[in-house]
Amino acid sequence: MQYPQPISKLIEGFMRLPGIGPKTAARLAFYVLDMKEDEVLEFAKALVNAKRQLTYCSVCHHITDSDPCRICDDKSRDQSIICVVQDAKDVIAMEKMREYTGLYHVLHGAISPVDGIGPEDIFIPDLLKRLQDDTIQEVIIATNPNIEGEATAMYISRLIKPTGLKVTRIAHGLPVGGDLEYADEVTLSKAIEGRREI
Amino acid sequence: MQYPQPISKLIEGFMRLPGIGPKTAARLAFYVLDMKEDEVLEFAKALVNAKRQLTYCSVCHHITDSDPCRICDDKSRDQSIICVVQDAKDVIAMEKMREYTGLYHVLHGAISPVDGIGPEDIFIPDLLKRLQDDTIQEVIIATNPNIEGEATAMYISRLIKPTGLKVTRIAHGLPVGGDLEYADEVTLSKAIEGRREI
Repeated sequence: MQYPQPISKLIEGFMRLPGIGPKTAARLAFYVLDMKEDEVLEFAKALVNAKRQLTYCSVCHHITDSDPCRICDDKSRDQSIICVVQDAKDVIAMEKMREYTGLYHVLHGAISPVDGIGPEDIFIPDLLKRLQDDTIQEVIIATNPNIEGEATAMYISRLIKPTGLKVTRIAHGLPVGGDLEYADEVTLSKAIEGRREI
Repeated sequence: MQYPQPISKLIEGFMRLPGIGPKTAARLAFYVLDMKEDEVLEFAKALVNAKRQLTYCSVCHHITDSDPCRICDDKSRDQSIICVVQDAKDVIAMEKMREYTGLYHVLHGAISPVDGIGPEDIFIPDLLKRLQDDTIQEVIIATNPNIEGEATAMYISRLIKPTGLKVTRIAHGLPVGGDLEYADEVTLSKAIEGRREI
């Protein structure tokens, strides 16, 4: 005997999610059996609603339930700066900081020749179109500090610089609360390179 | 700005599951956004179906979609042995072995005075009722090899032994494929204690 069919279906469902193997999936499925029915219904509804109601903003490609998204639509924000990020989650991280008041552009990935992802596969052409608007004065490139992110940053900056726009890259260095002793050499060399007068 | 409402609902849903914190929940929720709609619908349906269609067998308390469950209903199984386990998952583990052909009794927990769980809170009274049936000749106690599981095993065996039924406990010792060097002292002492002639 294996699991009764309804629970094996649920285990399969959980296993489709990233980072969840058969053991965790079984544990989660059994947990669901002990949850209150209305909690389970609510969770199922949240799944369907998230999938159905959310789309990507046609301007900045951030996830949103209205188009354009609330950030693009907010005229009180600084319309002259665009921060370029790889992922919708990066926008959330930036917004949590509560210090940046400009606009965003979500690339949905980074250039990665190994995975066959070129500039046309992420929203780089769209970014260039947005930059034709004269109100934009600065592009902050906040792609991830890894090979793909750096390559993407370099690629974008080379495309934009000739137009005379200011292009900046977020600073690399030691994370606050980090320990110099445990920093890798590349981070440390970037931290020295980016040193500022105090 | 925080997450749009549909996704924050979904993140909350995932966070209700055990072992899933805010970061993992967000990662899973964003993954769901990129899944195909029919996959998401199927997962949502699986959640609701598992909750609605599964009940516990009125005889052995194993999860089932029919009552009595397929194991209790299978007359080809050995009706004279009952294996007592803590959890429905333990039944699945036993069945995977494909060597045990007796019946089960799922306690749904173990005696734990610290958590206020007494013998009446798990299905021990139910087990005693089942044992009044004369066909049963042996009770194998397969509760977990930890303090609660051992206490439960001791408690049950003391209740049953006076009735003259054979009560056995699954063997403790080194797991197959394990390494003697890394075994803890308690396991090792149990392994020595339970040694058998070869």
